[in-house]
Amino acid sequence: MQTILEEAVAYARNFLHQGKPASYIPELAKADPNLLGAAIVTVNGETFFSGDYEKSFTIQSISKPIALILALKDNSENYVFSRVGMEPTGDAFNSIIKLETEESSRPLNPMINAGAIAIDSFIKGRNTDVKLNRLLDFFRLLSHNPTLTYDKNVFNSESETGFRNRALANFMKDAGILEGNVEDVLELYFKQCSIEINCKDIATIATVLASNGISPFTNERVCERHYTRLVKTFMVTCGMYDASGEFAVKVGLPAKSGVGGGIMATVPDRMGIGVFSPGLDAKGNSVAGMKVLEYLSTRLDLSIF
Amino acid sequence: MQTILEEAVAYARNFLHQGKPASYIPELAKADPNLLGAAIVTVNGETFFSGDYEKSFTIQSISKPIALILALKDNSENYVFSRVGMEPTGDAFNSIIKLETEESSRPLNPMINAGAIAIDSFIKGRNTDVKLNRLLDFFRLLSHNPTLTYDKNVFNSESETGFRNRALANFMKDAGILEGNVEDVLELYFKQCSIEINCKDIATIATVLASNGISPFTNERVCERHYTRLVKTFMVTCGMYDASGEFAVKVGLPAKSGVGGGIMATVPDRMGIGVFSPGLDAKGNSVAGMKVLEYLSTRLDLSIF
Amino acid sequence: MQTILEEAVAYARNFLHQGKPASYIPELAKADPNLLGAAIVTVNGETFFSGDYEKSFTIQSISKPIALILALKDNSENYVFSRVGMEPTGDAFNSIIKLETEESSRPLNPMINAGAIAIDSFIKGRNTDVKLNRLLDFFRLLSHNPTLTYDKNVFNSESETGFRNRALANFMKDAGILEGNVEDVLELYFKQCSIEINCKDIATIATVLASNGISPFTNERVCERHYTRLVKTFMVTCGMYDASGEFAVKVGLPAKSGVGGGIMATVPDRMGIGVFSPGLDAKGNSVAGMKVLEYLSTRLDLSIF
Amino acid sequence: MQTILEEAVAYARNFLHQGKPASYIPELAKADPNLLGAAIVTVNGETFFSGDYEKSFTIQSISKPIALILALKDNSENYVFSRVGMEPTGDAFNSIIKLETEESSRPLNPMINAGAIAIDSFIKGRNTDVKLNRLLDFFRLLSHNPTLTYDKNVFNSESETGFRNRALANFMKDAGILEGNVEDVLELYFKQCSIEINCKDIATIATVLASNGISPFTNERVCERHYTRLVKTFMVTCGMYDASGEFAVKVGLPAKSGVGGGIMATVPDRMGIGVFSPGLDAKGNSVAGMKVLEYLSTRLDLSIF
Repeated sequence: MQTILEEAVAYARNFLHQGKPASYIPELAKADPNLLGAAIVTVNGETFFSGDYEKSFTIQSISKPIALILALKDNSENYVFSRVGMEPTGDAFNSIIKLETEESSRPLNPMINAGAIAIDSFIKGRNTDVKLNRLLDFFRLLSHNPTLTYDKNVFNSESETGFRNRALANFMKDAGILEGNVEDVLELYFKQCSIEINCKDIATIATVLASNGISPFTNERVCERHYTRLVKTFMVTCGMYDASGEFAVKVGLPAKSGVGGGIMATVPDRMGIGVFSPGLDAKGNSVAGMKVLEYLSTRLDLSIF
Repeated sequence: MQTILEEAVAYARNFLHQGKPASYIPELAKADPNLLGAAIVTVNGETFFSGDYEKSFTIQSISKPIALILALKDNSENYVFSRVGMEPTGDAFNSIIKLETEESSRPLNPMINAGAIAIDSFIKGRNTDVKLNRLLDFFRLLSHNPTLTYDKNVFNSESETGFRNRALANFMKDAGILEGNVEDVLELYFKQCSIEINCKDIATIATVLASNGISPFTNERVCERHYTRLVKTFMVTCGMYDASGEFAVKVGLPAKSGVGGGIMATVPDRMGIGVFSPGLDAKGNSVAGMKVLEYLSTRLDLSIF
Repeated sequence: MQTILEEAVAYARNFLHQGKPASYIPELAKADPNLLGAAIVTVNGETFFSGDYEKSFTIQSISKPIALILALKDNSENYVFSRVGMEPTGDAFNSIIKLETEESSRPLNPMINAGAIAIDSFIKGRNTDVKLNRLLDFFRLLSHNPTLTYDKNVFNSESETGFRNRALANFMKDAGILEGNVEDVLELYFKQCSIEINCKDIATIATVLASNGISPFTNERVCERHYTRLVKTFMVTCGMYDASGEFAVKVGLPAKSGVGGGIMATVPDRMGIGVFSPGLDAKGNSVAGMKVLEYLSTRLDLSIF
Repeated sequence: MQTILEEAVAYARNFLHQGKPASYIPELAKADPNLLGAAIVTVNGETFFSGDYEKSFTIQSISKPIALILALKDNSENYVFSRVGMEPTGDAFNSIIKLETEESSRPLNPMINAGAIAIDSFIKGRNTDVKLNRLLDFFRLLSHNPTLTYDKNVFNSESETGFRNRALANFMKDAGILEGNVEDVLELYFKQCSIEINCKDIATIATVLASNGISPFTNERVCERHYTRLVKTFMVTCGMYDASGEFAVKVGLPAKSGVGGGIMATVPDRMGIGVFSPGLDAKGNSVAGMKVLEYLSTRLDLSIF
């Protein structure tokens, strides 16, 4: 497995030049495009690493499925999915059109920005700090990393320039989708997106999903089976933005990418994979990261299809 | 003329029950739906009044053509229309779709909310107070009413609930259309919309447009000819929200309505008309107000077509 | 007047190189881009000509307001406008989006392709030939030219390549907007668009609109006053495709353009103007044709605003 | 297994009244809403039947993944997916909007009507009959049923009323997506949709997909492994129209529904399932059919997630 992982990373390195760090969040634009790392954690707790696997980066949209689980713990499934849909969308992750043309104004799913912002407004807590701490604790539990926290510079950068997300949040507030104060929800969302993690962390979280809720290092249940299955479904149908269909064909794994350059992929009953490379394609997915996953999926026949 | 104006108001009174005060701004929802007033000011300074013509109400979107003139005084025409288009739209006044689907993200025209908010961001002044005072002074000059000011309760109400306008403004900020700080621009916009006026005030402003810039009471030029013509054009093609086409067929006058219940109409070279009745139709136009204008247009053959 | 017309044409000649003949109908692509002609017919029957005013071209969309009048003669106004709206649109002339997003699926106005095709389906006659002859006779009456007919080559070219119009017609048939057989309606529409006319013909029709229905050469009423006013309104709000707003600002006349290169403009109570030059801009309007009208409007102060 | 299948059908019978046969194709509206059948074929060739499993119905959209395979055999994968995308869409199956708003005008995926019509235009053959016979032969091979053919009445009904599909096809022809003659492609598409099958037939086809291309009755390879995996991916992300996301969460199987009331579901490496009940929900999926699958998936833990 170690050899194959090394091969995958070596193969992916050829595509590093095709990606470009996210430019719309100033702090992310500074990332070194040559970074590339990967980690595998099996459901039995074995670990394999390669490249810049210890380099930390911000979690960004990879946080969406995890925040969804917390919102589902805090609310009934009916409530959550009456306000955020379950359907994939052919629109971009930050598109606002569907909010106006859909009769209910509800965002199509929890993996696009609008849906993820709404989801954050359903997380319980008497103020934003309490909610944030609950979120951080849940991420720490799933990643088996008690030191996880958010990056203040990235948070400030996102908050100062997040006009499109502010537009989405205000639109949903007007439509009665969003709970609470708009700026409070956005603060929580931007802080959540700014959580610093590395390849091992997301591989560990992915392994919890792979084993339907069991931590690979403690063998304890850290998440309900039902929720892990549910988010894996969303990761297949809409985890890779509007390239999810193509990714399903080429890789065939539940996965979630973030504009920080990370991708979290899960192989049911077998392992979790975390990859990282800041260079993104036009749809916002890490170019070299996807190549690592493509290589692993083909070589190890990992596709669920 | 006085008799005909009385007839028009009497006729329109039959339609009072068909309208409903704007509900989306809490303060406006309190308006008495039975109010109905009208005022005519001729280019020679003659005045005719009927009904609740002295009752004051908030100007809302009727302010848009006037704010546009100020922005054009402060900037080149090329600059303004490179950021806000000149085309009518079949979409609702608060629609956000076209901002995403149009290549340039620029709002289609200065009479829809998105366009009017962008226009306010082009008004010069070293801070929001200075800008507001410049705006208020310009409204006072055109209306020959030095005491015009904004209503603090309505302003607060709009500011607290203006999520859709906040969405539009943030979307345009993201797209590089809006100048300056989003919340500052919105403060100016909400205060502008909250200016208190009455039928006589808007009739007077309309007369300035009718006479291509000359005040009917002082005979002095208070606005450039070119700008008065330009805004009259916008008033024909998009002054009555997405009912502008039907209004052009039925009434045939440059006009601008506001959700406060007012409509300002101008009869080129002859007179300005101000009407007010808080009951709106589904598109946001005063039901009885339009009936007054329909009656006057038919009876006096006022249509420009 | 003759001198001013010559000046206008000379001025417009400088812009010939900026336009390109319509490429999407193969027959139109063959047009000589250097052609430029103009004709004025006053309501008193005086005529002024310049350039290639006798050169014939196909009427294309200039036929839309005239076909609308015939449909209004054949049906109640209520019926027609329950199926085709009255509102301008910011979308392109051949856009299909609004047909799906509008609740009623009705086209926004009779000047865009969808609306004009629907309008043709309301024209009465026991078969397509009868309908076509009624249309041709009406065009002959208004243009005072008994020999008007359609160009078979252009008709064939449009019919063979008119896939977008076929899409619009079938979409409206599905939505219950279109009457009768889709292909029959399209045959009528394509033949109507292929009517051959010249600058003098459209200037004459425009003069009938200018005089509210009186032929300038016979002094007889050839059209109801109400309908002439109605179509002039549509010509202002949506006669120049999605450049209507800008044209209203710059020229300020009711006008209708066609991709054949013609523009018909009407100066209420004074005259009709017909211009022709095949080079179009990106929105489908004749570049030099608009320049002739801009010059005339400015020089003679013709704007209705 | 037989018992569980019976239980599933008995359970689903409770929901029969919630569905309504497709009304937009007149022939389909005549279907008996009380019909309900199911068939299972395992990869080892075992068969289990329940209810109206022998009742034949028209295949409709269930044909889409199969026609896609034939088009992929006839053309390079690059060619096919340069003209039809791989992405799920939140729009309805017959939506035309994305064709206009997407830069390339290509339909988002081969499972929506626009995509499936385009796919049919890529199938090789010197005329429509040859193409149809190739299609029929491929369906016969996969279903192990040499007598499959299309229903002439349903074909006529679809062809006479298929205005929306005609709109889609003409739009794509205009955009250069569709190959060949529009009416010929539509004839092939309507005939393909009219193929008569029963639950056993679609269960058999589904089993071929489950076993990656091996016929359960002959043990011969009847389809390339790669293509079976590819279509299973599309079935997960967009097989159940714009309810695919919710179906993935609730059932978690690659599936394709048709408005004839059938659903084809495949359980990788284990079995194919065919269900049939004409009553549809608002999104076009068989209500009782989905209940059978939900029951089986839960009871037998079939979800791939």
